[in-house]
Parts: sequence; C-alpha cells; structure tokens
Amino acid sequence: MNIEGKNQVIEAIKNNATINKIIVDKNYASRKDDVISLARKNKLRVEFLPKKLMDAKSVTAHHQGYIAETVEFEYSSVEEILENVKEESLVVLLDGIEDPHNLGAIIRTCECAGVCGIVIPKQRACQVNETVVRTSAGAISHMKIARVTNLKEAIDILKENGFWIYACELGGEDIYKTNLKGKIGLVIGSEGEGIKPSLKIYCDGIVTLPVYGSVNSLNASVSAGIAIYEILRQKNSN
Amino acid sequence: MNIEGKNQVIEAIKNNATINKIIVDKNYASRKDDVISLARKNKLRVEFLPKKLMDAKSVTAHHQGYIAETVEFEYSSVEEILENVKEESLVVLLDGIEDPHNLGAIIRTCECAGVCGIVIPKQRACQVNETVVRTSAGAISHMKIARVTNLKEAIDILKENGFWIYACELGGEDIYKTNLKGKIGLVIGSEGEGIKPSLKIYCDGIVTLPVYGSVNSLNASVSAGIAIYEILRQKNSN
Repeated sequence: MNIEGKNQVIEAIKNNATINKIIVDKNYASRKDDVISLARKNKLRVEFLPKKLMDAKSVTAHHQGYIAETVEFEYSSVEEILENVKEESLVVLLDGIEDPHNLGAIIRTCECAGVCGIVIPKQRACQVNETVVRTSAGAISHMKIARVTNLKEAIDILKENGFWIYACELGGEDIYKTNLKGKIGLVIGSEGEGIKPSLKIYCDGIVTLPVYGSVNSLNASVSAGIAIYEILRQKNSN
Repeated sequence: MNIEGKNQVIEAIKNNATINKIIVDKNYASRKDDVISLARKNKLRVEFLPKKLMDAKSVTAHHQGYIAETVEFEYSSVEEILENVKEESLVVLLDGIEDPHNLGAIIRTCECAGVCGIVIPKQRACQVNETVVRTSAGAISHMKIARVTNLKEAIDILKENGFWIYACELGGEDIYKTNLKGKIGLVIGSEGEGIKPSLKIYCDGIVTLPVYGSVNSLNASVSAGIAIYEILRQKNSN
C-alpha cells in the first residue's frame, strides 16, 4: 500500500506505520526537507526518484513528491488463531512489550517453536512496525498476530476453547515442575512492569523461571524464549 | 580510570572503550566541538563541568578540557573462572558474537543461570563496551569474562579440567535427548556464521534446539538462553 502526500507521509512516520521505504522527488534531495530528516531520524530507507517515475507509482496522483511504501502486514483475529489449534497448542499473549527488538525476537522464537499465534494489545505496546519486521528475520510473514483492545477478552475466548492460561512471572510455581501439556496460553509481561496485577489474577497459574544470580532478571525476549521452549519440550516428551 | 586529553578521548571513543561518560569543559559547550559530536553520535553521556572541577578530577593535569570516565571492567583468565568450578558447572564460550545487545543479554542470562564464567575471543568479536554494560543490566559486575586469543586453547584447558564441550548448532543431537550433566562447556556461534567449522570439530558433541517453523533460526541471545536453561534444568533434575 502507498501513503501519498507530504502531511500523510509525515503522519504515517509519526504513527509508527509499517513503512518499507520513503520515496522522495529527486529534486528535493538537496534542500532542507522535513520528511527526509524525519525519515532518517526514524532510520527509514529514503529513495530518490525523478518526478516521472513517481507519477507512475502514484495511485492518487497527489503525491506532492512524497510516497511512503508500507509493508502489508495484516493482523489476525483471535478466532483466526484458533482455526489452527490442535490438542497440544500454544498461544502467546504479550502484555505490553515496548521494545520493537524484543517484539521482533519473540515473533521469531514463536515461529521457530511452532506457536499457533500471538496476541498483543492495541494500546501501550509496540505494534508491528519496520523494526519489528526486520528483527523478526522473516518470521512475521508466517505468524498470526491478533491485536486486541483488551487482553482479558482474548483470555476469555481462549479459556472457552479449552486453554489453560499461565502468566510467566517471578513468584510463581517453578516452570519445570508445572504440567504444561494440553492447550496453553502463555502471558509475557512488559520489560519494565511485568504483567499487570489485574491480568495476572485472571490467569489460571503463574510459572517462574528459576534464577540463581544476583541480578534476577532476564531480558524479556530471552525469558519468553526459555518459557516457550520449556512448554514445547513438555509437549513433545512422553 | 580516566582518559584525558582531546586526542586520547577521541581514540578511546573510536576504539569502543568502556566509557561511562565524557566530561567536557563548560566553556566548550556552545562551540562546534569534535569530541562532543562524536560522543553524542556514540550515544555517550556528556557532562559539562567548570575548569576548576575538571582540574580536581584530573590525574595527569593535561586534560585540555576533555576527560573520558571509563568503566572499570577487568577481564578474568580461564584459570580464574575454573577457581569456582563445582561438579555441576557450566562455562559458556562465545565464538564471535558481534552485536553488543546480544553479548549484553547473554551475560545477563549467564548471571541469572549461575554460569561460572564466559570466554570470548579477542579478535573479530564484540568486546565489553558501554552498550554491553548497559544491556547486561548490572550482570556484568557479577560475571567472570575471560578474553582469549584462541578459543581452542580455552577448550583444551576446560577439557583437562574434566569438562565436556558441546557446540550449540543446527544438525546435531536433540538437546533434550543429550545428557548434559556434569561439567559442561557450551559453545555459541556468531549471529551470521554460527560456530567456525574448525572449532566445531574440536567439540565433544553438537546439541541442537528443535525448530518447527519455516524460518528455522532463533536470535543468538535467545537460543543461548534456551540452551543454557535446558542444561540448568538437567543439572537440577534427578
């Protein structure tokens, strides 16, 4: 999809749209340009094309010398994730991951681990943007991601479909001593705050990764990876 | 430790020294300044102080208005790592991790997991720098890291001390079906290339994380975390 026109492109960048690259009229290359500097600040690729070629790319014919080429990422619904569910399925719910590198790495892990789908909240959380797409190393195009207003509602739907929901947090049951077979929904908290208390009490249980050092906190994408793979190990063991 | 003088500070930044912050003479704050712009480009903290206070901080008395305050990170030797080794110990060897965020996250995981020590090569690999220190979230000050010219020599020393060395790579034995009790050395490869073939054949075995998706590659710090925690799980199970 293209976003065309100066203000539209600026809005798209500011709203963290999934932009592949910004195309700018070649004649604007040497002048002080708001769009170019904003694009560079956001580490987006900028390509300069002659006006003729831009006209050919334009759909609206009102590009004003600015086109943002966006990545076509389509979010799924929770119901669409459930379409592929089997007896030993895992769905991952992210309660407010903020760093796009962490979100990208978690998507990559989920894809490798054969996770059914990921659920993220619409508010106060990183959305699928350019950095997420890049960090996921291609995994994004193989993973169903649902974006919901309220994670509790997503949990309700999962529970109705036979899922057991576990929060991955400090202070719970040792993950290695918890039976995680069957349909599992795993909730991962944000980098700073963890899982919201109101959401945590909504889960069926809390599982904890053992820590032995003095720092006692793992990177969010690393702890998600360890928990996801432990669930996978249990599902594949007899 | 302080690094003092304009050229010395520039060199330290360019050589990726472990810099905590750059202190600059207050009078230089408003002028176009090479050191300040280089520091900002490298995302280092810049503090402005009056000349009098800088003189008080200076050891050489030749600071020329520029002091780099470096983080005191002291590498250990492999022998120092071995001092703490017990019957069920784990040492992690990194064959050329390049991204400081990955190195920092791996150090953080190792600290949480109670790993004895980390071995990194001096050449063609990320060293402990400012980004690594920040990403490790405090773990760096609790972890012994040895820097060696040749990982093979470090492996020799570990083998002589009763360690079994496993490469974590594709194409090996399922990590969940491998006995990883006892003293284990785990070799993790670089982000792009994995483990060098000449080093891989030097190991006692290859362990592999199962992958079920289409992308088939995990982020380096995530796969290191999963492998380290699986070894830990086995060590703590009966």
